[in-house]
Amino acid sequence: MTTRNQVLDQPVAATQAPPRAGQLRVGVVGYGYWGPNVVRNLHALDSCRVVSLCDRSEKALARAAKIYPALTMTADPAGVVASPDVDAVAIVTPVWTHFELAKQALENGKHVFLEKPFTSTVRQAEELVELAERKNLKIMVDHTFLFTGAVRKIRQLVDQGVLGPLYYFDSTRVNLGLFQHDVSVIWDLAPHDLSIMDHVIADRPEAVVATGAKHLNGLADMAFLTVYFPGNVIAHVNVNWLSPVKIRMTLIGGRDKMLVWNDLEADEKIKVYDKGVDIENAEGVHQLLVSYRSGDVWAPKVDQTEALKAELGYFVDCVLNDKVPFNDGVSGLRVVKLLEAAEQSLADRGRLVPIA
Amino acid sequence: MTTRNQVLDQPVAATQAPPRAGQLRVGVVGYGYWGPNVVRNLHALDSCRVVSLCDRSEKALARAAKIYPALTMTADPAGVVASPDVDAVAIVTPVWTHFELAKQALENGKHVFLEKPFTSTVRQAEELVELAERKNLKIMVDHTFLFTGAVRKIRQLVDQGVLGPLYYFDSTRVNLGLFQHDVSVIWDLAPHDLSIMDHVIADRPEAVVATGAKHLNGLADMAFLTVYFPGNVIAHVNVNWLSPVKIRMTLIGGRDKMLVWNDLEADEKIKVYDKGVDIENAEGVHQLLVSYRSGDVWAPKVDQTEALKAELGYFVDCVLNDKVPFNDGVSGLRVVKLLEAAEQSLADRGRLVPIA
Amino acid sequence: MTTRNQVLDQPVAATQAPPRAGQLRVGVVGYGYWGPNVVRNLHALDSCRVVSLCDRSEKALARAAKIYPALTMTADPAGVVASPDVDAVAIVTPVWTHFELAKQALENGKHVFLEKPFTSTVRQAEELVELAERKNLKIMVDHTFLFTGAVRKIRQLVDQGVLGPLYYFDSTRVNLGLFQHDVSVIWDLAPHDLSIMDHVIADRPEAVVATGAKHLNGLADMAFLTVYFPGNVIAHVNVNWLSPVKIRMTLIGGRDKMLVWNDLEADEKIKVYDKGVDIENAEGVHQLLVSYRSGDVWAPKVDQTEALKAELGYFVDCVLNDKVPFNDGVSGLRVVKLLEAAEQSLADRGRLVPIA
Amino acid sequence: MTTRNQVLDQPVAATQAPPRAGQLRVGVVGYGYWGPNVVRNLHALDSCRVVSLCDRSEKALARAAKIYPALTMTADPAGVVASPDVDAVAIVTPVWTHFELAKQALENGKHVFLEKPFTSTVRQAEELVELAERKNLKIMVDHTFLFTGAVRKIRQLVDQGVLGPLYYFDSTRVNLGLFQHDVSVIWDLAPHDLSIMDHVIADRPEAVVATGAKHLNGLADMAFLTVYFPGNVIAHVNVNWLSPVKIRMTLIGGRDKMLVWNDLEADEKIKVYDKGVDIENAEGVHQLLVSYRSGDVWAPKVDQTEALKAELGYFVDCVLNDKVPFNDGVSGLRVVKLLEAAEQSLADRGRLVPIA
Repeated sequence: MTTRNQVLDQPVAATQAPPRAGQLRVGVVGYGYWGPNVVRNLHALDSCRVVSLCDRSEKALARAAKIYPALTMTADPAGVVASPDVDAVAIVTPVWTHFELAKQALENGKHVFLEKPFTSTVRQAEELVELAERKNLKIMVDHTFLFTGAVRKIRQLVDQGVLGPLYYFDSTRVNLGLFQHDVSVIWDLAPHDLSIMDHVIADRPEAVVATGAKHLNGLADMAFLTVYFPGNVIAHVNVNWLSPVKIRMTLIGGRDKMLVWNDLEADEKIKVYDKGVDIENAEGVHQLLVSYRSGDVWAPKVDQTEALKAELGYFVDCVLNDKVPFNDGVSGLRVVKLLEAAEQSLADRGRLVPIA
Repeated sequence: MTTRNQVLDQPVAATQAPPRAGQLRVGVVGYGYWGPNVVRNLHALDSCRVVSLCDRSEKALARAAKIYPALTMTADPAGVVASPDVDAVAIVTPVWTHFELAKQALENGKHVFLEKPFTSTVRQAEELVELAERKNLKIMVDHTFLFTGAVRKIRQLVDQGVLGPLYYFDSTRVNLGLFQHDVSVIWDLAPHDLSIMDHVIADRPEAVVATGAKHLNGLADMAFLTVYFPGNVIAHVNVNWLSPVKIRMTLIGGRDKMLVWNDLEADEKIKVYDKGVDIENAEGVHQLLVSYRSGDVWAPKVDQTEALKAELGYFVDCVLNDKVPFNDGVSGLRVVKLLEAAEQSLADRGRLVPIA
Repeated sequence: MTTRNQVLDQPVAATQAPPRAGQLRVGVVGYGYWGPNVVRNLHALDSCRVVSLCDRSEKALARAAKIYPALTMTADPAGVVASPDVDAVAIVTPVWTHFELAKQALENGKHVFLEKPFTSTVRQAEELVELAERKNLKIMVDHTFLFTGAVRKIRQLVDQGVLGPLYYFDSTRVNLGLFQHDVSVIWDLAPHDLSIMDHVIADRPEAVVATGAKHLNGLADMAFLTVYFPGNVIAHVNVNWLSPVKIRMTLIGGRDKMLVWNDLEADEKIKVYDKGVDIENAEGVHQLLVSYRSGDVWAPKVDQTEALKAELGYFVDCVLNDKVPFNDGVSGLRVVKLLEAAEQSLADRGRLVPIA
Repeated sequence: MTTRNQVLDQPVAATQAPPRAGQLRVGVVGYGYWGPNVVRNLHALDSCRVVSLCDRSEKALARAAKIYPALTMTADPAGVVASPDVDAVAIVTPVWTHFELAKQALENGKHVFLEKPFTSTVRQAEELVELAERKNLKIMVDHTFLFTGAVRKIRQLVDQGVLGPLYYFDSTRVNLGLFQHDVSVIWDLAPHDLSIMDHVIADRPEAVVATGAKHLNGLADMAFLTVYFPGNVIAHVNVNWLSPVKIRMTLIGGRDKMLVWNDLEADEKIKVYDKGVDIENAEGVHQLLVSYRSGDVWAPKVDQTEALKAELGYFVDCVLNDKVPFNDGVSGLRVVKLLEAAEQSLADRGRLVPIA
């Protein structure tokens, strides 16, 4: 996703005016790889104000201080998640820290924006969802791809019935690196595909089968996930840190039309194929009558707005106007269920793991 | 494979001279989709002579008669597999007929060339292998891809150790159609990938996991196979009759180099990437030290000779000179074992099926 | 064009029935590279019958005799162009022979189908056109591309005004070889582009500028042609025998939409871009107001019928039913005018050569 | 060139220490499209210090002030080109202002870095070159592409004789927009291709032919340049603001090998083809004996360092250490000669314009 490489292009004044009435006051925890993008986009929003930033690394804070000199900096997360000056907390840290940080934030009455994946376990995700509900607070999980023009267009095409009933979703996300040292390729890359799948397929998955292998650091570096849905709908996800070439391609097959999303294409990211197969079982005929339809191909224009910008604006809007985000904790929990099941299945060499 | 679409380009005289001494006399059963290519290529060989042809369809025989007027035509397979004028039989019929036809041929002392897949069951394959051995006859299974310039080059690179120890083999073979009415996409398309995998990876597979779905005619039209090898080597095969785009791509990852074979490229079918990952576990360091290598890319020239021509020449040579073909019945049996295991696994939603 | 590589796929009976009433009797001169395709397609037509074939090469005739044993074979063109058994002659020989052969055919009352380019000189083309008109005979020049699905679709889009008024036509046709020893790359490759240009752009060209170079055999092996049309419409053709890669790409820009034809694409040969530029000269504003439009991309389905088959059916139809073919001698003459002008311009290093 | 889109990623302290001994003090004129990249890269260099910035636009200065608060800002170029605090001036303004600004800078004893193209006329370029020489000052023209890994690799391959003697250079640089209102597409895009050509081909051009058309704003928006070199070496440049697709492709043909540079490829920007043609004129043989060589393809790894960073470091080094930059005024003059000749030729519909 191109947004990942973007950096600050609008610096800020050395002193900050106090938050305006109606502005959401946001604290951010984590200023590593993805955090600077979150801060930059929050910063650009009129509807909110970044008031404090936490990172364990002094170097990271120094980098941030140069761009946002007026921000309150701290190495202690409590300075953010428990601060009375903060309405909402964005947590942009490794997944194993998500639960504790989010829990503290919620317990302190803060709304929470969490980097994907939501949590390390289903149990944690359920607890956070329940806690947020009890406290009447918002959780949003940062499945950034859902805010890209491409995925929004795909969702729209599916909702409008252009593809007809879906047959399958087959996604490939491979390249060389970046190896993680705390999570496998499933937890690193598959959240993208699974959250998109969850967003595009209305039905809920029944079970997962995952296979894969580890070659270098004791964690699976390649994995193949199959997700079963009701009614012969099936999804497949191929994630791999050891591919010599970068592939970001998703095929979605429907009864009426089929779609290819190639995220590496600069312009024609999505192509809709007027293609399909019809099978008739003519009476008395031994052989099935198969007919293939093949018509025009159509590449709809796709909005190029930075996805994270749209997502963070939506987060602030949901908090300020008490809306339930579609990518809320419940949605994040669904993805964590799949990840946990996939990891179990992979460990058992493809055992079918049902999704509750 | 481009060879599949080729048709006659050299007609034959209306009368035939008798076979020359030293020429293998071949009878062919089956003149449907692939049969004409087999006959054409056999015909072009100096080392053999096609003497008879069998097909149930009068129309098919009429088509053949126009090109090869001197050929003995018959609708009865016995006229070929039991004919005293025939030394070897090429069986180019649906898989469910392979066992009976091949058995009769072997029992009548004929060498056998069989279209892929070898047989419908492991049991049948074992019986044919045993029978051929007992009768001292050759069986060759038509895994045509093994004779393409691309696969020969890949095998050579692996044998020369260019890639280093292998990590994985990941093959995608998808397009729209052609739906078969007697076998699933596993038996239709995966024999290509599995025979290539078997040819490239020296080790023998331990177990198979397969998932997939059927959407139209009661047979799986998409399937995902994982094959486990000793030592964390893994293979994956993605076959699909319901894809809007045609993809024929295989990634092969090794410790030292990685390879991409894109069979749809006209010229640069194979690319070798000087890429890799090294991981050191530095003492006292929490985090793994990962380093990525990335160098030149190299597309070796690949021989463009028609694969089937090379294969049939090799068949005749093996028979005449009593050599054991590398793609013999034993090799065909290995592929059938994988197919049978994959079909079982798919039926059981990904159950791990060991390979004996 | 894929059709160029096709070879016989339907052999013929050893004896031929006499032509049926209403069938056109065709003689063919030339059985080298392209001739077999012409004979094969004529043969497949119900509306005509190939009655005789001429080639200087015994080997060529022998090849033909095997496929068409009943055909009258001759090494003497007079046996075809002057034969009382022939209604029409297809001339598939090097361009320097076209004029004499076509002239004899016309003088003997035969209709003529001529491989491109029409003739070696404008003078010859004019004489043939005039002769045919006087004798009330048809001439058709084999600009095969005009019968491809791609060009027919382009012509249709232009005629329907989809692109709006045209701005330019920019065509690239480069690859390694095949070097000709009697004509430059202009006469070898550019007839394709120029005939397509002539077919697509309704206006008539005013002048030509050509540049290029010769590196090997004394003939230009690469050339760049600019063709000026009225009203700032411009065409450019890049032809090259010395390119390491094969490119067959044409850009056509219109005011309302733009089109890219990539003939090497298997499926999406033509893409229509909803793109454009609008320029307003706002009063009092120093700078022009430029606005760019960018919308969907659309790849219309393109008919895949073999172009030469369609063309030859059309030739026979034009002769039998006295229609004027759109690719007649007059159209062939227009292309020869451009070729002759381009060759002159190239020799004079880009001198502007007006088209009469 | 990807560097064009980059923006600030490292902000600066609000106060600046005085220049260190040995640091070059640079003033920048122009902070529009390209200026921010120049300032950012100069800023990152240890060997120099940006001391002042000029732009007519208050808005532009305000943007800069936020990032570089300690910089002296001015709307008057004299504040830079005549400042005693400045050793060298970077001029990043429209081409029609280059001459006056550079002249003043040189007359005030400043070294000059100029955005491409060097000047609007040959006369101006010659005057600046002469003035710089007299004053013993450096001029460098910002032909950024010469500092890309791709062009450096190409130059290296040519210098090492890998391609053999060159046959041709054929470059295509087309896309939609950006329309300029003061210069044609020749002056806007062709400087890239011509400077690369000048860098790669050792010989000096003899003459230019250019054709093209204007469709919208009275300036040529597409142009085709042919550059003649001694000995049948030829270059061609296709530049177009009205293309629906972006193409950045250069073919370079040599006797021994051929090269394709596709700048839009992420990884394999350069491919070297072991392809060629040999022609023998066998005695007594009517036809030329043509043989085609075709071997491996090789994509050498290309350095990905930001080109502008390398270029500006080189500029400072040349000034501080009194070296003659290879992209100096003399080199910039050669490109302006070609541009001026091309513009004249285009106006005269392809008249051959000799290069002095």
